Amino acid sequence: MAQPLPQVSGVRLSAVPAKIKNWQRDDLLLIEIAEGASVSATFTQNAFCAAPVLVAREHIRQGDIRALLINAGNANAATGERGLTTARQSCDGVAGALGIKPQQVLPFSTGVIGEHLPVQKILDALPNAAANLRADGWDSAARAIMTTDTRPKTASRTVEVAGETITIAGIAKGAGMIQPNMATMLAYVATDAAIPQPMLDELVKEAVAASFNRISIDGDTSTNDACVLIATGATGEVIADGNSEVYAQLKAAIIDVHIELAQAIVKDGEGATKFVTVQVNNAASSQEALRMAFEIGESPLVKTALYASDPNWGRLVMAIGNAGAENLDTSKISVFLDDVQIVEAGGRADSYTEEAGQKVFQQPAFTITVDLQRGSACEHIWTCDFSHDYVTINAEYRT
Amino acid sequence: MAQPLPQVSGVRLSAVPAKIKNWQRDDLLLIEIAEGASVSATFTQNAFCAAPVLVAREHIRQGDIRALLINAGNANAATGERGLTTARQSCDGVAGALGIKPQQVLPFSTGVIGEHLPVQKILDALPNAAANLRADGWDSAARAIMTTDTRPKTASRTVEVAGETITIAGIAKGAGMIQPNMATMLAYVATDAAIPQPMLDELVKEAVAASFNRISIDGDTSTNDACVLIATGATGEVIADGNSEVYAQLKAAIIDVHIELAQAIVKDGEGATKFVTVQVNNAASSQEALRMAFEIGESPLVKTALYASDPNWGRLVMAIGNAGAENLDTSKISVFLDDVQIVEAGGRADSYTEEAGQKVFQQPAFTITVDLQRGSACEHIWTCDFSHDYVTINAEYRT
Repeated sequence: MAQPLPQVSGVRLSAVPAKIKNWQRDDLLLIEIAEGASVSATFTQNAFCAAPVLVAREHIRQGDIRALLINAGNANAATGERGLTTARQSCDGVAGALGIKPQQVLPFSTGVIGEHLPVQKILDALPNAAANLRADGWDSAARAIMTTDTRPKTASRTVEVAGETITIAGIAKGAGMIQPNMATMLAYVATDAAIPQPMLDELVKEAVAASFNRISIDGDTSTNDACVLIATGATGEVIADGNSEVYAQLKAAIIDVHIELAQAIVKDGEGATKFVTVQVNNAASSQEALRMAFEIGESPLVKTALYASDPNWGRLVMAIGNAGAENLDTSKISVFLDDVQIVEAGGRADSYTEEAGQKVFQQPAFTITVDLQRGSACEHIWTCDFSHDYVTINAEYRT
Repeated sequence: MAQPLPQVSGVRLSAVPAKIKNWQRDDLLLIEIAEGASVSATFTQNAFCAAPVLVAREHIRQGDIRALLINAGNANAATGERGLTTARQSCDGVAGALGIKPQQVLPFSTGVIGEHLPVQKILDALPNAAANLRADGWDSAARAIMTTDTRPKTASRTVEVAGETITIAGIAKGAGMIQPNMATMLAYVATDAAIPQPMLDELVKEAVAASFNRISIDGDTSTNDACVLIATGATGEVIADGNSEVYAQLKAAIIDVHIELAQAIVKDGEGATKFVTVQVNNAASSQEALRMAFEIGESPLVKTALYASDPNWGRLVMAIGNAGAENLDTSKISVFLDDVQIVEAGGRADSYTEEAGQKVFQQPAFTITVDLQRGSACEHIWTCDFSHDYVTINAEYRT
């Protein structure tokens, strides 16, 4: 499967068992970042955001971040003042272990919502974590942050930039329906390139817009979602020109890593058996195209049809009509399943056969393309199907 | 179960078999309305609306409606120009059979999307339908419009208004997840009261807002949804004053019939095992309250928890946080399961026990109440759970 992740100069990781839950596994991850790195992050838009998200937002505003602490098993969400206190205590613990300030630590939690974080277990495990930081710790890090994920999610690239080899490595967790109870999509990407803070702040937004914000498993947003992008600056010249060819090349590789991680989350969606790209072309605006792609990709009726390998074009047409596109001329709409045309001029394509449609839908991965012929905006999202296992996993998760 | 529906003076109905599909049942319903009645309707907002919806909208604008024709088994949706032609031909057929103009007929179709309507079968069945019109045909009418519904949906009221007994009767179909493939939620309500057209136009909007627009099964809107309200004027004085006590009483009864039909649709939702009211209180605006109620009631994670009888408050909190309420102070939020408080000050209520929560969730019907304590707007919706049977029904429907 995935190659072992390469080291990123300026980043060391350590995964240790803290027994956050009653399990035998690493569940605490410490990431140490060399002095002078730039660190940017995006966080969940959920108004009920978790205590660690509030603390991480506060700390990252002050800059000069030197460590990340991530625990699995407990989300420290909907835990009120006490949750804020435990999140701060864990930052204090990291600061003590690494000889930095608590404000230089970003805390992250993923797991069950509404139970108090067993912070003493984290504090007890930190000396061990600090003593075992290593540059080749990425793969065990990817496993330590898993919750109901069935496999670790990693991605990497190396690019030659101005004669230097730049490395990018990333890990993510998501599993479940980007499942908000076993809360959270988390992603950590690091490069040894030297990218100034303002450029990195823009880049993380752009990368998330192109990757994690284009995936849908069940349309819910967790209380703890976060994506962190680190540029340690250990390798190469500082990139000064955001319009340079050099930066374009580096940026493309960093965005690729985000996309690969995002797609890995969809492929490991709870109960998912299919990976589906929904592409909307020639819309009046990007917003219109993206909304329609999500309307199709999030419709339970479409998702159950995907599961059944049933190219039920009535449901596709229904979802297109529900996407709020104003004055939509349905007689201009075409829909393709890979290269099989199923809808032509708003009705069933004459050339379409059920056999051809089913052949596409039976594949583990395919693309649904909608052409609106009313503009030039094109957008895509990635989704998965809705299976019996989804209901089983989500109906039985806490028991 | 339901009482037989009473007759509504000025309305006659006839359900006959037209063999729209290869089945043994009545699948064509003709409703004749006496001269001088007021008829109002609301239609689907889906941009891909079906041919009969386009024709019905055109006809109702001209007023003086005398007949409704409804077929099950085929939605005549996404059928292009030919679909419009077949919808018009069926109106011509009714006009010929009843001696009225085609523009006085509203056509409705429900069933599979994207297949052409077998209009000749309808035309062949119309003489039989016209010959068998009867005032006591409501219950067979309710059965004729069913698709995957497991039972007919009917509701009625009688009210004494200014010394006269006014009757209201209604039928609806929905079944499936207000399921857009076996397209459609349809509802027909009639009263013998005399309600002038402009008042009836307002009333149907108000009644739909209070009933069918508050239900969610899977969040999708069909291509064929419609609700028709008929006031024959056969009984009592014309209601002239929209602010009168008399009208308030009549209106309440008519809205009640709509609500009962809407609730019957949720209770018969595909695979539904629970009927759940989601109530949001003390929101900043009605819009905010309604959006949050739907966010909770449509979340697949909440709906699978309902199915599992698992009072998973993390998922409730997640849905509340996702509802787009700006500057939400989560520390003020309370959540109740019937009268059991589960969330207090944004965290798990001290008094809450898992046993008490599960006891509520194991009931076939209960209410989830969210109190935001930031305004005075209160709204509610009705929803159902998301079961294995939902996936089975929707994954296997066409096969």
